[in-house]
Amino acid sequence: MTWYQTDGKKNDMIISTRVRLARNISGFPFSAKLSREEGEKIIDLVWEALAPVQKDFTLYRIQKLSPVRQQALIEKHLISPDLTDARAPRAAIIHKDETISIMVNEEDHIRIQCLAPGLAPDAAWDMANKIDDLIGETISYAFHEKFGFLTSCPTNTGTGLRVSAMIHLPAISVSGGISGLLAQAAKSGMAVRGLYGEGSDAQGNFYQISNQTTLGLSEEEIIERFGRVLASIMEVEASLRKKIADAVPDRLTDRIMRAYGAMRYAHMISGKELINYISDVRLGIYLGIIEPIPFEKLTALMVTTMPANISGGGSMSAEERDIKRASIVKKIFK
Amino acid sequence: MTWYQTDGKKNDMIISTRVRLARNISGFPFSAKLSREEGEKIIDLVWEALAPVQKDFTLYRIQKLSPVRQQALIEKHLISPDLTDARAPRAAIIHKDETISIMVNEEDHIRIQCLAPGLAPDAAWDMANKIDDLIGETISYAFHEKFGFLTSCPTNTGTGLRVSAMIHLPAISVSGGISGLLAQAAKSGMAVRGLYGEGSDAQGNFYQISNQTTLGLSEEEIIERFGRVLASIMEVEASLRKKIADAVPDRLTDRIMRAYGAMRYAHMISGKELINYISDVRLGIYLGIIEPIPFEKLTALMVTTMPANISGGGSMSAEERDIKRASIVKKIFK
Repeated sequence: MTWYQTDGKKNDMIISTRVRLARNISGFPFSAKLSREEGEKIIDLVWEALAPVQKDFTLYRIQKLSPVRQQALIEKHLISPDLTDARAPRAAIIHKDETISIMVNEEDHIRIQCLAPGLAPDAAWDMANKIDDLIGETISYAFHEKFGFLTSCPTNTGTGLRVSAMIHLPAISVSGGISGLLAQAAKSGMAVRGLYGEGSDAQGNFYQISNQTTLGLSEEEIIERFGRVLASIMEVEASLRKKIADAVPDRLTDRIMRAYGAMRYAHMISGKELINYISDVRLGIYLGIIEPIPFEKLTALMVTTMPANISGGGSMSAEERDIKRASIVKKIFK
Repeated sequence: MTWYQTDGKKNDMIISTRVRLARNISGFPFSAKLSREEGEKIIDLVWEALAPVQKDFTLYRIQKLSPVRQQALIEKHLISPDLTDARAPRAAIIHKDETISIMVNEEDHIRIQCLAPGLAPDAAWDMANKIDDLIGETISYAFHEKFGFLTSCPTNTGTGLRVSAMIHLPAISVSGGISGLLAQAAKSGMAVRGLYGEGSDAQGNFYQISNQTTLGLSEEEIIERFGRVLASIMEVEASLRKKIADAVPDRLTDRIMRAYGAMRYAHMISGKELINYISDVRLGIYLGIIEPIPFEKLTALMVTTMPANISGGGSMSAEERDIKRASIVKKIFK
């Protein structure tokens, strides 16, 4: 079972929570300056450090993956696009349930990423912390008494911790409150982005919110502050959803029902259409307009129907993907 | 049971067949020149002539109907728009199953219209013939030994017979063959029009085909010739449908399935949307893509969900009608 097939707390609003730790190994130059030998050495060191848990992980040497398989990992947020366009040896060490992914020789030597379904900053932090401790047992991290963990980019220096959540905000979007939310989040030291990170638009009213500051606060303070900002956004979304539920506009009901009908019956569905249908259907379930579908089934669709994942490592035309996507979507209603 | 709730022969292509007879009463001026008293007298004469079958008919004095009730009869093709915008007394005498409608004091004193579901020129002609004979028993028709039945407009003089069919031609439409069909029909003395008669466009690929000549041929010859032209059009449509069925394009399957999904789940459906959905779903049933719905249920939808009929004599906004239309459409899937 992957994280996206698993029920999560508050998953009517929060799709997933993610914690990332940036670490570098002392005695090596930063990734950009690594020689081929040094790069390989670091991959070996990290993989060996994971010896006690290796059986649950797979080591992927990025250069050995076909472009479509690289893209499939990017779509699942298991690796970053940056990891794939490098000359130095790079790797991803991925847990079998796809909750933990360790990128090696990306911007930093080590990036530990932990994903949990729903609202789970503590659980995600706990996972990352354990992996961090395990690797730290055999590897000496680059650490400065005053600044904390040293990173390639100064914005990550300190704790090296970024916590983020993928959040579904259809009611705030419908009410036109997103720009206000963005401003408020920035004031609290948070950033709000679209579904696929920086610069992407918020397809289907899905947003990523993350902390911007990693220096001058303890890990626990960062996690706690993030949790508070998230809770206040969820409160706004919940009250706006309640307001909509009191008198659902007919046009909205129609949009939701048509999305539901298209998911059940369309023969071809593009990725962009599907994200919007999922958004409408999620809201429809929340409003009690349509019979419930477990939210994790909808989340799994978002992950498994993306272009590279749907192609299963092979090559498919956009039309073929749209047909296969529609057939996968239909199955959740059986 | 009305005609449109009844299964008809070849109703996968032919919605209905209609026969109309134009008659005038000797000793009266044509409708345009009738006095109020003469108009009333004609209504009485026709109604009295129907004495043996009166219990199955209702006499509507058009001027006493509200505009929305007049419109409801127009939508069902039971009366013509012309019948409603007159100063002289006008009436419609309508059979309880809506197969027979006799307009009084329209362009001609008497217009007998008989509708039958599916391909049924003989049955429709038989009905019209019987009503014609019954009225002719007590009323003296304006008749000329050489020209035949005299009519207000010379194009109807002779037999006064027009036979028409409402035909669904999605395959010919998709294949771009409609203009060729129009030219061929004209050569055979037939006219092809859109769903709502002259000048209307062919919404949902529904067409009306009718004979243009009423003089110089016997009634039986007109009916027979019409049947032959119709059969040749149906043959073309059938062979094109077969060609589509051999390899249904994915885009067409998608359009059909989405139409089906929208009919099942949409909360609001406009009249124009519905005609297109019905067209796609009819083709989908023919192609075996979707589970069969009796065609007469789809025909009934076309009639009962039109604006005036859906309003049930009251006043509704377009939005209210769209909501009610969608709820009526949904019921056919239960």
